[in-house]
Amino acid sequence: MKNVRVELGKRSYDIVIGENSSELLNKFVDNRRTLLVFDDRTKELYSEKFAFANEAKYSFGRGEKDKTVEKMVSICRAAVNAGLNRSSVLVAIGGGVTGDMTGFAAGILLRGVDFIQVPTSLLAMVDSSVGGKTAVDLPEGKNLVGVFHQPQAVLIDPEFLNTLPVRELRCGMAEVIKMAAGFDAGFFEKLEAHAEMLAAVKTFMPLAIEVIGRCCELKADVVRRDETESVSGVRELLNFGHTFGHAIETLSDFSLSHGECVAIGMVIAGRAALLRNMWSEAFQSRLITLLKKAGLPVAPPEGMPFPDILQLMRRDKKNRDGRIALILPESLGKLTVKRDFTDDELRQVWESFYD
Amino acid sequence: MKNVRVELGKRSYDIVIGENSSELLNKFVDNRRTLLVFDDRTKELYSEKFAFANEAKYSFGRGEKDKTVEKMVSICRAAVNAGLNRSSVLVAIGGGVTGDMTGFAAGILLRGVDFIQVPTSLLAMVDSSVGGKTAVDLPEGKNLVGVFHQPQAVLIDPEFLNTLPVRELRCGMAEVIKMAAGFDAGFFEKLEAHAEMLAAVKTFMPLAIEVIGRCCELKADVVRRDETESVSGVRELLNFGHTFGHAIETLSDFSLSHGECVAIGMVIAGRAALLRNMWSEAFQSRLITLLKKAGLPVAPPEGMPFPDILQLMRRDKKNRDGRIALILPESLGKLTVKRDFTDDELRQVWESFYD
Repeated sequence: MKNVRVELGKRSYDIVIGENSSELLNKFVDNRRTLLVFDDRTKELYSEKFAFANEAKYSFGRGEKDKTVEKMVSICRAAVNAGLNRSSVLVAIGGGVTGDMTGFAAGILLRGVDFIQVPTSLLAMVDSSVGGKTAVDLPEGKNLVGVFHQPQAVLIDPEFLNTLPVRELRCGMAEVIKMAAGFDAGFFEKLEAHAEMLAAVKTFMPLAIEVIGRCCELKADVVRRDETESVSGVRELLNFGHTFGHAIETLSDFSLSHGECVAIGMVIAGRAALLRNMWSEAFQSRLITLLKKAGLPVAPPEGMPFPDILQLMRRDKKNRDGRIALILPESLGKLTVKRDFTDDELRQVWESFYD
Repeated sequence: MKNVRVELGKRSYDIVIGENSSELLNKFVDNRRTLLVFDDRTKELYSEKFAFANEAKYSFGRGEKDKTVEKMVSICRAAVNAGLNRSSVLVAIGGGVTGDMTGFAAGILLRGVDFIQVPTSLLAMVDSSVGGKTAVDLPEGKNLVGVFHQPQAVLIDPEFLNTLPVRELRCGMAEVIKMAAGFDAGFFEKLEAHAEMLAAVKTFMPLAIEVIGRCCELKADVVRRDETESVSGVRELLNFGHTFGHAIETLSDFSLSHGECVAIGMVIAGRAALLRNMWSEAFQSRLITLLKKAGLPVAPPEGMPFPDILQLMRRDKKNRDGRIALILPESLGKLTVKRDFTDDELRQVWESFYD
């Protein structure tokens, strides 16, 4: 068992990594009226596991296509109909989409109720369940509306990974590699030394608590320094791989997963950094090698025209004064933000993958 | 011109009461990309008045029936399509519904952008534009989802009242009387001494800045002490008249206005306080007299069955552990919260109006 404290004054909370998530949850809920929110997959697998006194259950689809305002509001309506009030609690038991939707619902229901994250995917454990960012998509683009709403606790039980489809495991590995490459060179070297663990649950399990814990510590430190992604803050560095990644994800109509697109996005960011001589071929090659060992793609798919990608990137929330923000690597463990890339440079980077 | 500062640390802002709201707004917007949000009525009247460099315009219906999640999200979508980003600003030019919808939209758009209130109804000037509470309705009830999102500024121009329908003026007077009766006996006496001003815009205008300013000061003081309506805080006292009022408003299917229902709700709250010998017949009579002088109703309409009212009150956000919260007057300028009324007592209070 490992405990990571996210220090945010009155909004501080613990990330508890270990087994027995059901007992732990029961303790945190403490007899308050509760709505457990599952997705279709976790409801089937874990609805029995989480059965205690004062709770109602709700589930919705899963996947990015379900991340709509309508479905998020349906969680609020289910909560009202189940008799929840201001002292009640919403619990998300699922992956990143379930956490985003439930956290957003908890942030607006009666102008804010308590919220506990029980992430069941690796992606949610190492990234999306920590930090209080929630959002859903609009027809105009991904994650365009949302709130900052910190959870009361995050309960991470690696046991859930045993039932996780391998493609979803890989998605989580993309974020693990992102945290290492972007924030901690020593951690990156550790992943290289044990690269076999990136490929399958069985090999990952012995190091799960340590790896997940390190990712949570790194993210908690960023969130502590910049809770709401202020313009000059460090939190936007977490979007390494996400600028091109989000655009590719949208243009693929979500046939590519978030993690796959982040992996591709990091390689593209690396190549943009190479164009400016900010980063070395040796680092780029180590990044690509590690991503490949985790079974992740390292180049954009065929047939994505640059103008479509550019148009989608123009809607990125990190942009300022119409300038696209790129999060670029300078060395392993060190990132920087660049907002001065011209459209021509961006095109050159993009088209280099199609040569 | 009068300035009221709302002290909330980093979220502090000014309420500016005076003429020339268009010039003032232009100054606050300061060339940022802006979406001006009107309702149908204010768009027709004031769209020309607010025309400056970098702005787009959007309008939607008006009235409680339009206060839906869908219409609120349509403001976000209009903002995205108009090219707004995190350093942009949303401006609400309209009454309480416009402010609530636009404030909520600004609170969730890109997880929060700046927001300026230009209230055009008396109700919005003295109450809803101050304090950062936003919400929309769900099919299950009024104001069930929302956020706390403080504006960057509130610009109050009494000139707008010249085009306000008299029924809407009365609605605002209900909140003026609420602030006086609930928080400032001296202000209540002042209203009694100049009761003719409550009845029409023409008589109100000479005292408008003073009366609106005093309401804003009183509300700002409450909000400063309890920004997010904490369980044990003072902010819930602002709901004097609203517990029964909201239920009546919903049951009337919004044929009664918010202010009319608050007026009725205050009289019912007064009668509940009389039942417990907490309040005097003399105070109750002065409250009723002042409401009548403002042309407001002082008893519930015919044909509203108590069980329907009770069921709606059970959904009130202020309730705890299933107990309905009543905000009751103890003397002029002094309110208290009671959560120990039995269903029988509530029925007795309600049915006394139908004897």
